[in-house]
Amino acid sequence: MIRLVALGEPLVQLNAVTPGPLRYVNYFERHIAGSEANFCVAAVMAGASCGLIARVGDDEFGKAVLEYLRGRGVDVSRVRVDGGAPTGIYFVQRHYPVPGRSVLVYYRRGSAGSRLSPEDVDVQYVKSADAVHSTGITLAISESAREAVYLAFEHAARRTFDTNIRPALWPSPEAAREAVLRALRGGVEILFTDPDDTRIVLGVSDPDEAYRRYRELGVEVLVYKEGARGAYVFHDGGKYFRRAYAVPVEDPTGAGDAMAGYFAALYLSRTPPERALDLAAAASTLVVTVRGDNEAVPTPADAERLLSSL
Amino acid sequence: MIRLVALGEPLVQLNAVTPGPLRYVNYFERHIAGSEANFCVAAVMAGASCGLIARVGDDEFGKAVLEYLRGRGVDVSRVRVDGGAPTGIYFVQRHYPVPGRSVLVYYRRGSAGSRLSPEDVDVQYVKSADAVHSTGITLAISESAREAVYLAFEHAARRTFDTNIRPALWPSPEAAREAVLRALRGGVEILFTDPDDTRIVLGVSDPDEAYRRYRELGVEVLVYKEGARGAYVFHDGGKYFRRAYAVPVEDPTGAGDAMAGYFAALYLSRTPPERALDLAAAASTLVVTVRGDNEAVPTPADAERLLSSL
Amino acid sequence: MIRLVALGEPLVQLNAVTPGPLRYVNYFERHIAGSEANFCVAAVMAGASCGLIARVGDDEFGKAVLEYLRGRGVDVSRVRVDGGAPTGIYFVQRHYPVPGRSVLVYYRRGSAGSRLSPEDVDVQYVKSADAVHSTGITLAISESAREAVYLAFEHAARRTFDTNIRPALWPSPEAAREAVLRALRGGVEILFTDPDDTRIVLGVSDPDEAYRRYRELGVEVLVYKEGARGAYVFHDGGKYFRRAYAVPVEDPTGAGDAMAGYFAALYLSRTPPERALDLAAAASTLVVTVRGDNEAVPTPADAERLLSSL
Amino acid sequence: MIRLVALGEPLVQLNAVTPGPLRYVNYFERHIAGSEANFCVAAVMAGASCGLIARVGDDEFGKAVLEYLRGRGVDVSRVRVDGGAPTGIYFVQRHYPVPGRSVLVYYRRGSAGSRLSPEDVDVQYVKSADAVHSTGITLAISESAREAVYLAFEHAARRTFDTNIRPALWPSPEAAREAVLRALRGGVEILFTDPDDTRIVLGVSDPDEAYRRYRELGVEVLVYKEGARGAYVFHDGGKYFRRAYAVPVEDPTGAGDAMAGYFAALYLSRTPPERALDLAAAASTLVVTVRGDNEAVPTPADAERLLSSL
Amino acid sequence: MIRLVALGEPLVQLNAVTPGPLRYVNYFERHIAGSEANFCVAAVMAGASCGLIARVGDDEFGKAVLEYLRGRGVDVSRVRVDGGAPTGIYFVQRHYPVPGRSVLVYYRRGSAGSRLSPEDVDVQYVKSADAVHSTGITLAISESAREAVYLAFEHAARRTFDTNIRPALWPSPEAAREAVLRALRGGVEILFTDPDDTRIVLGVSDPDEAYRRYRELGVEVLVYKEGARGAYVFHDGGKYFRRAYAVPVEDPTGAGDAMAGYFAALYLSRTPPERALDLAAAASTLVVTVRGDNEAVPTPADAERLLSSL
Amino acid sequence: MIRLVALGEPLVQLNAVTPGPLRYVNYFERHIAGSEANFCVAAVMAGASCGLIARVGDDEFGKAVLEYLRGRGVDVSRVRVDGGAPTGIYFVQRHYPVPGRSVLVYYRRGSAGSRLSPEDVDVQYVKSADAVHSTGITLAISESAREAVYLAFEHAARRTFDTNIRPALWPSPEAAREAVLRALRGGVEILFTDPDDTRIVLGVSDPDEAYRRYRELGVEVLVYKEGARGAYVFHDGGKYFRRAYAVPVEDPTGAGDAMAGYFAALYLSRTPPERALDLAAAASTLVVTVRGDNEAVPTPADAERLLSSL
Repeated sequence: MIRLVALGEPLVQLNAVTPGPLRYVNYFERHIAGSEANFCVAAVMAGASCGLIARVGDDEFGKAVLEYLRGRGVDVSRVRVDGGAPTGIYFVQRHYPVPGRSVLVYYRRGSAGSRLSPEDVDVQYVKSADAVHSTGITLAISESAREAVYLAFEHAARRTFDTNIRPALWPSPEAAREAVLRALRGGVEILFTDPDDTRIVLGVSDPDEAYRRYRELGVEVLVYKEGARGAYVFHDGGKYFRRAYAVPVEDPTGAGDAMAGYFAALYLSRTPPERALDLAAAASTLVVTVRGDNEAVPTPADAERLLSSL
Repeated sequence: MIRLVALGEPLVQLNAVTPGPLRYVNYFERHIAGSEANFCVAAVMAGASCGLIARVGDDEFGKAVLEYLRGRGVDVSRVRVDGGAPTGIYFVQRHYPVPGRSVLVYYRRGSAGSRLSPEDVDVQYVKSADAVHSTGITLAISESAREAVYLAFEHAARRTFDTNIRPALWPSPEAAREAVLRALRGGVEILFTDPDDTRIVLGVSDPDEAYRRYRELGVEVLVYKEGARGAYVFHDGGKYFRRAYAVPVEDPTGAGDAMAGYFAALYLSRTPPERALDLAAAASTLVVTVRGDNEAVPTPADAERLLSSL
Repeated sequence: MIRLVALGEPLVQLNAVTPGPLRYVNYFERHIAGSEANFCVAAVMAGASCGLIARVGDDEFGKAVLEYLRGRGVDVSRVRVDGGAPTGIYFVQRHYPVPGRSVLVYYRRGSAGSRLSPEDVDVQYVKSADAVHSTGITLAISESAREAVYLAFEHAARRTFDTNIRPALWPSPEAAREAVLRALRGGVEILFTDPDDTRIVLGVSDPDEAYRRYRELGVEVLVYKEGARGAYVFHDGGKYFRRAYAVPVEDPTGAGDAMAGYFAALYLSRTPPERALDLAAAASTLVVTVRGDNEAVPTPADAERLLSSL
Repeated sequence: MIRLVALGEPLVQLNAVTPGPLRYVNYFERHIAGSEANFCVAAVMAGASCGLIARVGDDEFGKAVLEYLRGRGVDVSRVRVDGGAPTGIYFVQRHYPVPGRSVLVYYRRGSAGSRLSPEDVDVQYVKSADAVHSTGITLAISESAREAVYLAFEHAARRTFDTNIRPALWPSPEAAREAVLRALRGGVEILFTDPDDTRIVLGVSDPDEAYRRYRELGVEVLVYKEGARGAYVFHDGGKYFRRAYAVPVEDPTGAGDAMAGYFAALYLSRTPPERALDLAAAASTLVVTVRGDNEAVPTPADAERLLSSL
Repeated sequence: MIRLVALGEPLVQLNAVTPGPLRYVNYFERHIAGSEANFCVAAVMAGASCGLIARVGDDEFGKAVLEYLRGRGVDVSRVRVDGGAPTGIYFVQRHYPVPGRSVLVYYRRGSAGSRLSPEDVDVQYVKSADAVHSTGITLAISESAREAVYLAFEHAARRTFDTNIRPALWPSPEAAREAVLRALRGGVEILFTDPDDTRIVLGVSDPDEAYRRYRELGVEVLVYKEGARGAYVFHDGGKYFRRAYAVPVEDPTGAGDAMAGYFAALYLSRTPPERALDLAAAASTLVVTVRGDNEAVPTPADAERLLSSL
Repeated sequence: MIRLVALGEPLVQLNAVTPGPLRYVNYFERHIAGSEANFCVAAVMAGASCGLIARVGDDEFGKAVLEYLRGRGVDVSRVRVDGGAPTGIYFVQRHYPVPGRSVLVYYRRGSAGSRLSPEDVDVQYVKSADAVHSTGITLAISESAREAVYLAFEHAARRTFDTNIRPALWPSPEAAREAVLRALRGGVEILFTDPDDTRIVLGVSDPDEAYRRYRELGVEVLVYKEGARGAYVFHDGGKYFRRAYAVPVEDPTGAGDAMAGYFAALYLSRTPPERALDLAAAASTLVVTVRGDNEAVPTPADAERLLSSL
């Protein structure tokens, strides 16, 4: 079984039960999320093991995070309980102002998760993993978290990375670009990205051009996500496009993480990239049909059922 | 008014309030269902009377079944309360693993309903009905239930039947085929079926071919349901296809039963089959827009409103 | 800032939490609505001020209406609390019998709101407004309410009107036609209407013909709403069509009011009619994605976000 | 089996899901109620049969009433569907302004139910019953309903009556007193009342004095309900007091009706009055623990279980 | 009408729908709260006017706060929208670990509300009020907020204050004591406090002794709240005790604020203190029966109804 | 850390959202329970480790059980997934027919959990534990499960047992008595029981007499639970009684298991029995305030908070 490790902040998600502007939402549904936590759950569902390096607060929400991820089979032995700050949370506004899309409202500044630091990186733990994953979010939440990623990547056997640039978390696009490029420096085997991030990092938006440029930067496999349109996988100089399945959208949050975790686990277990993308797209599709970022990630057998129904 | 009788197990349905895998569903909504109970409700809504021959447990859920069906105008005077076993129940997982479809999880083995037996068949009651209905589900739930169907069919003035083969309830496809063919032996006037069941029973999947073969077996009218695509009615050597209306799907469970009950009641009341199919398709369409198998079955006037809005 | 005044009955809305026939709905969600109240909220969201001339009962629901509208920034200083009758309410049945449409069930006969009368019309208040708005609903609910509209229109600087003919509220189509035509008599600058109402008022259904005829009756701008298809704005002899955005429908109630309030506020603030229609269509679109008639009316910035996402 | 008939308006109840002032209640739960409908359900649960003489509107809520009561085993063959007016409804505000009590807000003026009239009274149906029941509410809702009660009482074999004076429904206490006294004129075998009503009708509040006076007016059995304190039964010159069980109150609405229906059914079936009161008090107790006026009325076996647990 | 002004942070409250540890709560209900906002609502309900000096974020939750308070009749013209920080929020854990009590979990550090500062204090606005109110919470949330209180108190005609010491918000009890004593310096007419706070501020816990000491510090009226036991009012050398009403507790949060706002508004309007306490205790009692801190604050007429029911 | 092992069937619990008879419950809330699973969670909360020997079905509910218990820190490495039968479930009817009590309705006959057998007992795993726990329920669900308990007890270092006799699961009281007595044969260190079970097993109901008799049978510590009254602990010839705390009851299910798991973990970790009972009673108390059998089991620190609040 492939063994993965991810670094990033798990969060409590408060998802609007009814669509529309947050100010008229009377009920919120609690979920556990966070890009890297989602990645871990998806990777576990796809058959890998995955450990999370992170911090949570010494509070009820921190316990909720730990119990949920442990229940899902994620190794939380490296999630540190930090009594000095609360567990980060965020709210999901759904279908407003653009139907089919969600807006995230964070209460994570100064959170325990943002205090992730190089001292949390157990180098032996990292070294013994087949691959280490992180995202542009972890680079953004604090300097110490960013350094933790760089340290872990330094010791990683292989690296996977999702650019995941959230403009609200960065002082400037340049800061994001620079941080992402530094993350790529040691060689990232699988890079997950999308048109917006590509424009920020490379200044281009054409997927083929992006692949050419990222390949020069050492990326072997590029998964280029175009949201509701579909996704490309570029590898070995070729490309494959998977159209997204048309499904009713409840909340698209987490779809990209499901694709990343699922694809990484499958690809690293030697599933051909085209097939890995098909299955990862199925996982991603199911995630948008529910609230919560990772509950609908399927087993490979269920992903197969979806693919064969189309 | 046309008087129908159906044999089969009414069930308590626990429908997932939120879509996705059942293991993350926190709330379930209670409904009353079961293929033949659904048939009865649909028949009553279409203007017929309908009595159910069945058993329920001597428990709260059994009372829920009786009160609901009695409220809906179904004659429950022949539903026997059996103190020796619980009322059967099932869970509905929605939109997973295939968005737009549901997965049913039964707790009906050994249920009161499955103890339906020939001794429950009041022959005078059956004889005085215009037609008797049952489905492949009743054939599958127990040997005694199967015999009850055969006994009732023996005494029935006319017969309608829905193949409704649920592989999970049968030891083998052959067993299902054999049981269905025996049900057809006495001559079924209206047969409801779909491509999967046709493949099992006849080994073919082409609707025209199916009609030819079933006609040889004594079927006069064949309603061939193709789910979200639409449905055919074959009769007198001709056919008519009704495309399904595109609507947002909440839970498709029960759509076929609504079509069967609605069509049977209308056709037997001398509505032309094409028009009966149109109205039955409207009923079937509305059922998929809600949780619960029969609450959205319309009055003919409301079905008309839907048809005229398209 | 443009200052508007509207006359009409605010209502408590009880919206079905689950779709389907009302008789199986177990939970209802409370909202505040009413065509002219919705208009006011939309106008305020679009940047205008808006005062409502109306009555509510001296009861909890009346207080709910006042608090909600005051909270939304609507001037309720002219909403009179009438101890002699209850606040009007209505129920919303969703997706039945036609998926995507709603059926309204009123309990407003003899309500406080229907007792609106000319004595409630503060003429100075009306005169100081830039424009006065009302709808065919207010003309229908009582003779005194109808007279109140005519009185206010008499003193209004400019007039906007939505035909909004609800057949259930009128003794005959002729009565509706006559009342609407009298409302137009003094000259309505912006008229909102749809094909059904046009047929009743003018006996035609072609939008161009309708514009020609209404123009003769003094209408300067005609907003011709074709529901899920889109809407036209006719002005200065020309026309512009805005296709509706395809979104999942939760409840279309209120969409027309949002369009009217938004368009009126923008147009009267000298936004070009084409652009006003685009933004008003965005507002209208968002309203159909939620329960409640006015909570999803966007700020212009959010409407812009929706437009630019398409 | 004892056969009872009751006259009165069945209503749709919209019960506040959360306690407190109605204006902040966001969700309402739908139930079927009405004093005489509640009486019927309780009588049926206690082992009698009961038919309701009433009207409902030709609308979804009217259908909900019919289906629910039919489901509960109440004979609704004499409930007339009146297309000329809507089914009456009411809202329940819970625990405010007095915790443990509810406030009812009616939308029943001019309802179908209030149009009950002597022409709805099937005299043969009434004569064939063992007893006829009504309440002060039916006397209050309209003159025609009042006359219907008097007509039915005239032909009744035996009579039971609940004073149930709702001041809001009467022009004056005198009007209520007069109407109640007239209802008693023909001789009421079981009278249900409480201190407030006794003060209005007799001008006294002492239960013993009330019994003396009502006995003179022909009452044989007096059930004197003191709400959360308990209840007396007076008969044959003696009295028995049953203390109420202390339970957490969800909504006390319907408790008195449960007591009346349960007591009447048992007493008329020759259960000794003391025991009938004990069981009726158990029924009444359970009703206050739930929302809805009649769902928690127990079978006698369950009432026994409660009694023996104390 | 008495005109009050309060300074403090309004917050969005996320109240656990189900009791027990927060980590198993799946749904949260949104309310608007904050000690001084609650005070304002209570004061308005008691017949005063009340303006809030505060900041909220330029976000959906800030808008929710403004709309709710404006709707409730609180003057929000001095609530500043601060784009530099989010609106503060908190979660309410109910009945755990002590049934009948709640635990608050804040996400308010660095919030817009905590950035309240002397520059937000419109001195003319303050001077024109009859009295100015604040609490120990506002003293605790930031130095600038504390200074804002002192500045407002300096210019206030009369002052009311609630000690409200939340240990979690203070570096040490001494810091709290010192800040509270400074607030009292200019003379506080009505002081609201409880045993815990008295121990921190005065080092005593006996209410009589507390009154003696606070009187020396210039307090005229002392309202000494003993939670579920009841409350004292001390004035003119005498005292009056009001036992709390025993009611089922849903969430006690906000009860003290309701008492303060209600008492202050009534007392300053020349209601005798004993009667003001009775009514304020009724208000406080109703608040604990619901989720949300201020929705159940009654009108004086409703408070009277509660008092007279006891 | 004390290491415990328990044998028994974990179940999915469907708890009625509203109180009253199950047949009117529209929504059910999903929890994970089962007496021994509850014991494990309580033991873990009290500071022990606990492994469960059990079976679940290869279905969504089985996965829900595994994820929940793993999340709670229970060792599920010995829970076998049995593809041959479904995971057992049960429904909870609350507050009916006796307010404050619950009725359980099982669908567990033939469940995977009831197929627990001696072959599932990893003897090394059992031997390495400090103590092994089971209950009368496991003895009742099947012969193979009963044998599994006896086998595990044979190899256990120490034994704890809860009589937990559910009459519905036994053919006769004698069968229960015999099975329980056999379980005691090897010497049970801590026995948990109540008056009903004592009457069945020993034919006595006096707690002192029960202690005398059980002591002769080798029991060292007897925890005698009297439900809402309180509980005794007998040990070393003496006894201690802890009165139950009066709290509002939501659902008492699981209270006994919480007491057993908490007490066992504390006592075996050398907490004095009186103090262990106090804390276990606090745990038990909190469990009755929520739906779900184990979510409200506190940490010892929270149990302490409850004790010190009284």
